[in-house]
Amino acid sequence: MAGFVRPAHPEGDSRPRDGCGVFAVFGHVDASAHTALGLHALQHRGQESAGIVSYDNGHFNTHRSLGLVGDIFSSPNVMDRLTGNAAVGHVRYSTTGGTVLRNVQPLFAEFSFGGLAIAHNGNFTNGYSLRRELVKRGSIFQSTTDTEVLIHLMATSSYHAVEDRMIDALRQIEGAYSIVAMTNDTVFGVRDPLGVRPLVIGVLDDSAVLASETCALDIIGAEFVRDVRPGELVVIDAEGLHSVSPFPAARHRFCVFEYIYFARPDSVVEGAGVYEIRKRIGAELAREAPVAADVVVPVPDSGTPAAMGYASEAQIAFDLGITRNHYIGRTFIEPTDQIRHLGVRLKHNANRASIAGRRIVLVDDSIVRGTTSTKIVEMMREAGAAEVHMRIASPPIADSCYYGVDTPEKEKLLASRLNVEEIATAIGVDSLAYLSIDGLYRATAGANRNDEAPQFCDACLSGDYPIRLIDQEDGDIPTQLSLLMEQV
Amino acid sequence: MAGFVRPAHPEGDSRPRDGCGVFAVFGHVDASAHTALGLHALQHRGQESAGIVSYDNGHFNTHRSLGLVGDIFSSPNVMDRLTGNAAVGHVRYSTTGGTVLRNVQPLFAEFSFGGLAIAHNGNFTNGYSLRRELVKRGSIFQSTTDTEVLIHLMATSSYHAVEDRMIDALRQIEGAYSIVAMTNDTVFGVRDPLGVRPLVIGVLDDSAVLASETCALDIIGAEFVRDVRPGELVVIDAEGLHSVSPFPAARHRFCVFEYIYFARPDSVVEGAGVYEIRKRIGAELAREAPVAADVVVPVPDSGTPAAMGYASEAQIAFDLGITRNHYIGRTFIEPTDQIRHLGVRLKHNANRASIAGRRIVLVDDSIVRGTTSTKIVEMMREAGAAEVHMRIASPPIADSCYYGVDTPEKEKLLASRLNVEEIATAIGVDSLAYLSIDGLYRATAGANRNDEAPQFCDACLSGDYPIRLIDQEDGDIPTQLSLLMEQV
Amino acid sequence: MAGFVRPAHPEGDSRPRDGCGVFAVFGHVDASAHTALGLHALQHRGQESAGIVSYDNGHFNTHRSLGLVGDIFSSPNVMDRLTGNAAVGHVRYSTTGGTVLRNVQPLFAEFSFGGLAIAHNGNFTNGYSLRRELVKRGSIFQSTTDTEVLIHLMATSSYHAVEDRMIDALRQIEGAYSIVAMTNDTVFGVRDPLGVRPLVIGVLDDSAVLASETCALDIIGAEFVRDVRPGELVVIDAEGLHSVSPFPAARHRFCVFEYIYFARPDSVVEGAGVYEIRKRIGAELAREAPVAADVVVPVPDSGTPAAMGYASEAQIAFDLGITRNHYIGRTFIEPTDQIRHLGVRLKHNANRASIAGRRIVLVDDSIVRGTTSTKIVEMMREAGAAEVHMRIASPPIADSCYYGVDTPEKEKLLASRLNVEEIATAIGVDSLAYLSIDGLYRATAGANRNDEAPQFCDACLSGDYPIRLIDQEDGDIPTQLSLLMEQV
Amino acid sequence: MAGFVRPAHPEGDSRPRDGCGVFAVFGHVDASAHTALGLHALQHRGQESAGIVSYDNGHFNTHRSLGLVGDIFSSPNVMDRLTGNAAVGHVRYSTTGGTVLRNVQPLFAEFSFGGLAIAHNGNFTNGYSLRRELVKRGSIFQSTTDTEVLIHLMATSSYHAVEDRMIDALRQIEGAYSIVAMTNDTVFGVRDPLGVRPLVIGVLDDSAVLASETCALDIIGAEFVRDVRPGELVVIDAEGLHSVSPFPAARHRFCVFEYIYFARPDSVVEGAGVYEIRKRIGAELAREAPVAADVVVPVPDSGTPAAMGYASEAQIAFDLGITRNHYIGRTFIEPTDQIRHLGVRLKHNANRASIAGRRIVLVDDSIVRGTTSTKIVEMMREAGAAEVHMRIASPPIADSCYYGVDTPEKEKLLASRLNVEEIATAIGVDSLAYLSIDGLYRATAGANRNDEAPQFCDACLSGDYPIRLIDQEDGDIPTQLSLLMEQV
Repeated sequence: MAGFVRPAHPEGDSRPRDGCGVFAVFGHVDASAHTALGLHALQHRGQESAGIVSYDNGHFNTHRSLGLVGDIFSSPNVMDRLTGNAAVGHVRYSTTGGTVLRNVQPLFAEFSFGGLAIAHNGNFTNGYSLRRELVKRGSIFQSTTDTEVLIHLMATSSYHAVEDRMIDALRQIEGAYSIVAMTNDTVFGVRDPLGVRPLVIGVLDDSAVLASETCALDIIGAEFVRDVRPGELVVIDAEGLHSVSPFPAARHRFCVFEYIYFARPDSVVEGAGVYEIRKRIGAELAREAPVAADVVVPVPDSGTPAAMGYASEAQIAFDLGITRNHYIGRTFIEPTDQIRHLGVRLKHNANRASIAGRRIVLVDDSIVRGTTSTKIVEMMREAGAAEVHMRIASPPIADSCYYGVDTPEKEKLLASRLNVEEIATAIGVDSLAYLSIDGLYRATAGANRNDEAPQFCDACLSGDYPIRLIDQEDGDIPTQLSLLMEQV
Repeated sequence: MAGFVRPAHPEGDSRPRDGCGVFAVFGHVDASAHTALGLHALQHRGQESAGIVSYDNGHFNTHRSLGLVGDIFSSPNVMDRLTGNAAVGHVRYSTTGGTVLRNVQPLFAEFSFGGLAIAHNGNFTNGYSLRRELVKRGSIFQSTTDTEVLIHLMATSSYHAVEDRMIDALRQIEGAYSIVAMTNDTVFGVRDPLGVRPLVIGVLDDSAVLASETCALDIIGAEFVRDVRPGELVVIDAEGLHSVSPFPAARHRFCVFEYIYFARPDSVVEGAGVYEIRKRIGAELAREAPVAADVVVPVPDSGTPAAMGYASEAQIAFDLGITRNHYIGRTFIEPTDQIRHLGVRLKHNANRASIAGRRIVLVDDSIVRGTTSTKIVEMMREAGAAEVHMRIASPPIADSCYYGVDTPEKEKLLASRLNVEEIATAIGVDSLAYLSIDGLYRATAGANRNDEAPQFCDACLSGDYPIRLIDQEDGDIPTQLSLLMEQV
Repeated sequence: MAGFVRPAHPEGDSRPRDGCGVFAVFGHVDASAHTALGLHALQHRGQESAGIVSYDNGHFNTHRSLGLVGDIFSSPNVMDRLTGNAAVGHVRYSTTGGTVLRNVQPLFAEFSFGGLAIAHNGNFTNGYSLRRELVKRGSIFQSTTDTEVLIHLMATSSYHAVEDRMIDALRQIEGAYSIVAMTNDTVFGVRDPLGVRPLVIGVLDDSAVLASETCALDIIGAEFVRDVRPGELVVIDAEGLHSVSPFPAARHRFCVFEYIYFARPDSVVEGAGVYEIRKRIGAELAREAPVAADVVVPVPDSGTPAAMGYASEAQIAFDLGITRNHYIGRTFIEPTDQIRHLGVRLKHNANRASIAGRRIVLVDDSIVRGTTSTKIVEMMREAGAAEVHMRIASPPIADSCYYGVDTPEKEKLLASRLNVEEIATAIGVDSLAYLSIDGLYRATAGANRNDEAPQFCDACLSGDYPIRLIDQEDGDIPTQLSLLMEQV
Repeated sequence: MAGFVRPAHPEGDSRPRDGCGVFAVFGHVDASAHTALGLHALQHRGQESAGIVSYDNGHFNTHRSLGLVGDIFSSPNVMDRLTGNAAVGHVRYSTTGGTVLRNVQPLFAEFSFGGLAIAHNGNFTNGYSLRRELVKRGSIFQSTTDTEVLIHLMATSSYHAVEDRMIDALRQIEGAYSIVAMTNDTVFGVRDPLGVRPLVIGVLDDSAVLASETCALDIIGAEFVRDVRPGELVVIDAEGLHSVSPFPAARHRFCVFEYIYFARPDSVVEGAGVYEIRKRIGAELAREAPVAADVVVPVPDSGTPAAMGYASEAQIAFDLGITRNHYIGRTFIEPTDQIRHLGVRLKHNANRASIAGRRIVLVDDSIVRGTTSTKIVEMMREAGAAEVHMRIASPPIADSCYYGVDTPEKEKLLASRLNVEEIATAIGVDSLAYLSIDGLYRATAGANRNDEAPQFCDACLSGDYPIRLIDQEDGDIPTQLSLLMEQV
C-alpha cells in the first residue's frame, strides 16, 4: 500500500524500496505463527512496521507495531493472543518521519456484515480522487493510506455479499496492487488486472497460503502451487479455493524491478528463479559492456548475483572486495558534520587486499541518486584500485514509480538529469555502462522488448506507464493529506 | 462519554464514578497549557486517560494517553507540539481491562469541510441504535464510544455548514451530555436539553473557556461567567460567542449526584458552592437522624464536609478519626488471599486515639456495594469504638445510572437488595440512617422534591428516569461491541 | 539515608522532606507482600524510589525502581520473584535531577560470609570522612550514598561474626539514623545513640516486623510492640529477638519535626499519637497567639490538625476553606513564564464561599522558603478574605538539618534572613505568629524545653546540634561526589 | 571479558561466539562519536550490549545498555551527554538469560586517585581465585565479571601511580585478554603475554585509537599503525604513546579461530587480511579433500570465502545456493513444537535452481553442535541436491575455550563424542572432511604446526592449553556466583 502523501525518500539511501509484503493463511491451527514466519521471510519488502490480524470464533485479534517482525512477534504474550485458524499479515517499508501507528496494516473495519481485515502491496492511482468523493459522501477515514479507500467503497457498496462488495469496490479502483483480506469465514487474494505486483498461492498440510513471494512459503515448509493470475480474485473458505475474474482480460505487465532488485534471490517469481535471472542479467551486461580488468567486485548484497554472472561470462576473476555490515539497528546517527564528511562507512568497507593495484569492475544493480555509488567508488580508490569500471545491472532509472515502489521524485533521479557520460564523471569512474533495456528483456523474458506490447511494466526505465495516473493528472493531491498530527 | 459496552465496575471500589471531564479554550496563545492545567483540576472526574487536541494554522495537533494528566502532559516534548490558539481536552474514568487508546478522547475526524475534534461527558441513550443504522449505511467506526456517533451523524448530514450539521446531529441524539468540539475556526459547547451534565463558561484575558466545573477556571485564573444553559449550543469564534437553541424548551434536571459526590468541593455548580451544599446536607442529616454520640468522624475525603455539617448541627465534636493515604499508584495488588482477608487498609487507617472508647457517628456520602463501609466499620471496632453509628449523606442508591455515571448493575447495588435495617446488619453498625430524598432537595434546591416536576435528575435514588432509555429498551446491545481485540 | 551531595531542594516546594522510610519482616511466608504494603503506608516519607530485597534459600531477590510503591510493586511478575520468608524495604524522598538507580535502596553486598541487604533512614555526619579513608584503603563504592560506608566498614572489619562486624562498623559512625539489614538468617534493626530517627517493632502472627512508623504495622494488621530504643541494636533470627547495646548510654533526643510534619497523623510515635499531638500544638498556638477572627482555615493537609486544635481552643469556627488536589503525577510543568506568573494553583484552591468577607486565621505547620505561603495568602485575598492572620504550628526554621531531613541551605530559609515582622510583610498577612519553642515542648513533651538537657533534637529550630557535624567541620565535601555521570 | 558463571550457550546456535570487542580514542573532539562508530564496526564480536565512557573535564560520562550499537547510540540525547576528548567502549556477546546491566562494560570505579573506566575482551583464568581472596580482604564486587578483579587489584595495590597499580594488578592475573582503560589523563591498552586476543593501534588526525580489529579503524578513516604486541602495555597521554613490558617475554600464541571465524573478513589481523586467509584455507581444504561435484555452495556468510577458495582451487563452479535472511530482530520464537519440527528456516533458504539435480560441495567454517549443519543438509536434500559433500574449513572442535570465547561444554561438542565418519552419518552427508591442523597452519602461518612451539593458540582444536586453567583446576567455581537476583 502507499500513502497518498509521499514521505521524503531519505537522502542517504540510493535504492528504490518496495512497497510492502503481504501474507495470509486459511485453515491452520498455527495461522498466526506461520504468518509471523512468513512476514519474517518477506522482511526485505518492508522494515518499518508489521502487523497480523487473526480470526478466532467471533473475534478478530490484532497486533501491529513499528519495528522488525522478529522483534514485534517474539513475545509469547503477543503470540498467545493471536489465536485462530486464519490470519493475514503485512510488512511495510521504512520511511523517515510521518509514520504513525494508525497507518500500520492490516487495516481493520467493522461492517454491518461483520469485520474485515485487509493488507495491501501496491498503489491505487485514483486513490485520492476516490477518497475525496467518499469523504464528501460522509465517510470518515482513520488512516492516510490508499488501502482504506477499498474499505469505504465496500462499506458503502449497494451490493450485499462480501465478495460482491469487494468486486464492486475493485472495479472502481485503478492501480497496481496485490491485496489479501479476511472476514470471519473467508480469505481473499487479488492482483491488479496487469499483475504488476506479485502474489503466490501455496498449500501447507490442508490449509491455503497466500504470500508476496515464494520464499515466504519455503520458511514454513508450504508447497508452491501457482501465481495468482493478473486480475484474478481468489476466494478461500471452508469449501476450498475458487477463482473469480472481476476485470476484462489484459496483457500481463509484471514489474521488472522485482527481478532487478526487490524480490529475494531465493524466490521464484512468475516462473523464474530470481537468483538465476540476476546472474543472466550480469552475463548480458558482460556481453554488452565488456572491459579489460583484473577482478569483478559486487556492491553487496544486491549486486552480487549480477557480478557473478558478469565475471563468469567475461572470464574475469570474481572477488568479494567489499564487506557489508549487517548490524544496522534503528538509524545510526552521523553525529557531526566533521564525521559525516569523513565519508563514514556504516554499511560497507573495502577488503584492501582484493582491491589494491587491480583494475576492478564494480557491479551494482542500479543507480538512483548516485550518492552511494560515489562513496563506494571513493572507497575503491582509497583501497588502491588501479582502475574502477562501473557496470549497472539495469537500464538508467529516469522516471518515478507510481505503482507501489518508493522512488524519489523524477528530478532527484540522477539519470533524469545526466547522460551516461556525465554520470560517469559525477561518480568518478574510469568507465560506466548500464544494461540496455533489450538486454534486460533478453535476460528476463528471453527476448527483446516488444514495444507494441511490452512483456513487463518498466515505467521507471522507459517512462511508459501502463496504468492511468489519475491522481497525478488531477494534480491536486494535497502536500499533507491528514489535518491531524499525532505522535506514535 | 460512555462506551456502549459497560466495563465491569471494579469490585473493590464502592463509589460511583463520574464519566468524564471536558475543557476548551479559544483564542489564547497558551491554549494547550491552559487546557492541561484545566484537565488537572478536573482529574477527579476521570483518572484513566487524558487527551488534548489543539489547532494551529491548518493542523490539528493531538496527544492522548492512558494515565494522569500530570504524567501525560509533563514533558516539554509533548507540550511543544501542541501549538495553537485553540484547544479541547478530556479526562476519562478508570476501568479495568478493555481500555484501548483508540477510545481515548478527544476524538478527531476529517470531514469534507475540514477537521473536527470532540470531547464528551455523558451518555447517548440511543447511541447504539444510531450506530447500528450508520454502520448499515456504510459508516466505519474507529472506536467503541458513543461519542463517535455524533461524528458520523455530522459527516453524513445533508446540511452544509458545520454548525448546521452539528444541530442536525444533536437533534437525532437522546441522552445526558456535555460536549465541547473544535474546528479550524470555531469552538462549540453544548449541554443536553435537560442539562443533566455540567458545563460552564469562563473568560481569561480576551479568550473564552469552557469547562465541566469552575475549579478548572480557578486553576488558570479565568473568571466564571455563567453555566451553559440546558439545551444551549454556544458557538465561539473570532466574532465572539453566540448562543443557539436547537431543542424545544425543557425543565432543568441537573444531576443531583454532582452535589453529593462528583463535583469538587471548591467548584460552584449551578450557582451553589459544592462545599457549602455538602455541609448543608450534613446538617439536614443531623436534623433527620440524630444520635447520642461523642464524636463525628468522616470517611475521608468525600464524607468530610457532610460530617462537619452534621457535627456542627448536632453539637457533637468533630474529629479526623481516619487517615487517608493519598499515594495510590497504578493498582496495588493484594497479593495473596491471606493478605486480602486480613482486611488490608490501602487507603484508610484509624487514628486510634480519636476512636478508642468513644461512641462515633461515621459520616459517608453514599453506600454502593457496601464493601468499603464494612471494612471501615470493622476498622473502627478494632480501634476500640464503643458504638458505631453510620449516617449517609444521600438517599439509598437503588438504581443504575444510564446518563454518564459509572454505577454497578442494579443487582449489585446494596440498596436494591436490602432495606436499611438489613444494610445496618450487613455492614455491622449499631445504627444506620440515610438522608431522605426531601432532605436532600431541601439542602440543594431549598425545598422538598417537586414530584410533578422534580428539580433534579435523581434516577439512581428514585428510579425516575427523565430521558428515554432507548438502547436499554431495545435490549440488543451486544456484550462485546467491537469485533477487534487490540492491545494498547 | 542521605547522599553526601545535597541535591538542590526544588524551588517551588517549601516543605522540609523526610529522608526515607524503612521496613523489614522476618519469618513470614508473605514477607515481600507485607513489605510492599508497609512501604505503601510509609510513602509519605519518600516518593522518589522504592526497593525490596527478600531472602529465599540461598538467594537474595531484589527489585528497586524509581516511582511510587503502588506502581513499582503492582505487577505479579515483580512480586512472584520476591520469594522468601524475610525481606527488607525502603522508600526514598524525591529530588530533582541526579537521581540514579544505583543509589536506590536497599543496597546489597556480597561479603566472604554471604550477602547483606541494608536500608537506611538518616544521615552519617562523618560519612564522607569515612568514605575517603575507605577509598584510600582500596574500597570501591557503587553508590554516592552514605549508607554504603557501613557496608565497607563491615566488609573490612577484622571481626568475624556478622553481628560483631556490624557493631564494629556502627561504633565508627556518627550520625542520626535508623537502619534495617538482612543476612541469610538474620534481620537487624538499629537506631543511633540519641534515637533521632524513629524505628518501631511489631509482631504479625509469629513473625517480627520493623518499621519507621506504626502506620506501617497497622496496614498489615501487625501489633505494635515497642519503639527500638535509642542506641539499641535488635537482632532477629530463628531463635527470636535479642537486643544489644553497642553504644554508651546517651540522652534521648528524638526529632521534634516528626511530630510537627513528617510522621503520619495516625502513627503513634514515641508513645504519643501524632494527630493528637498536632491538635495540642494548635491549642498551644491559640493560647500563645490569639486573634479576633471569623474562621480558622487550615493549609491542607499538613496544617489541618493544628488548625482544628487552634479553632477548638480559640472557640472560632473551623472551615475547610482550601481544597487540595491530590492527583499530582510526575512533575507538572508550568509551561510558560506567563502561566507561571498567573500564580497557578496546581495543589490548592480556595472555597470562595468559606473565605469571602471573613477574617481568617490561616494555620500551617511551618514556613521554609515562604513561596507557598505567599501564594496561599494571595489566593485568600483574591477569594475575598477580609483579614488574613497566619499562625504557624512550629517555631521559625532558621537552621539546616544534617540528620537526614532534606532542608534548603540556611541562607534560603526565610527565618534565617528575616524576623517575624519582616516575614509577615513578605508574605502579605495582616498578622503572623509562630509557636514558641517552649509552647512546642509543652505540647509534645508536656513541659518547657529543658535547655540543659533538651528532650528533643530541635537543631533546625534552635541551632543546637546534638551530634557532631564532622564532615561539615572538615568542610571538604566535594560539590559532586561521584565522578561518574550516568543516566537512569 | 567473561563472567565467572558460564551462561548456557543457546541450544539452537552452533557457532562459537567471540567474547567481546573493545575500542578507545584519546585526544579527539569527537571521541564518543568515533567510539560509537568503532563499536558498530565491531558489532560482530558482541551483540548483547554496548557501552561507552567518555572523560570531560573532571567527569566521566557513561551510557551502557542492552542491544545493538546502532540502537543504543542513535539518540542525540545520548550522544550529547558523552562529551570529552577521550572515550573507551565495549560490545559484548549475546546470551540467553542472566544478563544484567551491572555486568555491561565498560566498568567504572572511583579510586583515591580518581576514576577509571575499563573494557575487556578475553578471560582471566585465575579470576575466581583472585576474587575469592579479594572478597575475603573486604572488597565488595558490583558485577559478576572477571574484569572487576582487575579494578580491585588496582584499588588495593600498595603502589601509588596508576600505571604502577595496573602493572601490579596485571602481574597477578593469568589469562588471555585485551584490555582498554581510561583515567582522567591517560588511555591504556594491554594484551596478555601470549597475545591470544587481538588489539590494534591506529591514528586519526593527531589522536590515538585502540581497537580489537582494523575494520573499526577503517570506519572512522583512521590509519592502522600496528598491532599491540603480546604482553605490551601501551600508555597514551598528552605526551604521546609509550610502551611498557610488564611481563617476561613469551612466544606469541594468537587465537587461530580469529582467522577461521571471529574476525571480520575486511580486517587485517596480525599482518594478514582475513578474507585472503579464508580463501587460502578453502584452497588447502580443496587440496586435502577433493571430491567430484558440480557446484561449491557456501553456508553464508561465514563459509563464503573458504568456499570461494575451494571452488577456485578445485576448478568447480561456485554458486550462492543458499540465501541468508539478515533481518534477525531480538529472538524470534519458534512458537509451537509442530512448527519447530518443521525445520523452520529463519536464517537460511535454498536457491532451488542452483541446487536441484546437482552434486554439491557444502563449505562451512566449523561444526560445533551439529544442529545447524543437519538442518542445512536436509534443506539441500529437499531442494533436490543429487549429492551433498560437506567440507569444513577448520579441524574438528573437540575442546572448550577458556580464553574468552563462548563455546559449549566439551560434552556438547559434536567432535568430542563422534569421529568424522560418525559425524557424517549424524548430519546426513554423502561425505565429510575437515581441514587438517597442518593444513590450517599452512594457510595461516605458511608452514605446518610446530608442535614444539605452536605458532597459534589452537586449544579448542588440539586440547593444548597454553595458559594455566587455575580456576578450572581448583574446580570450585560456584554454579551461581552472585547471591543477588536482579532483573534488568
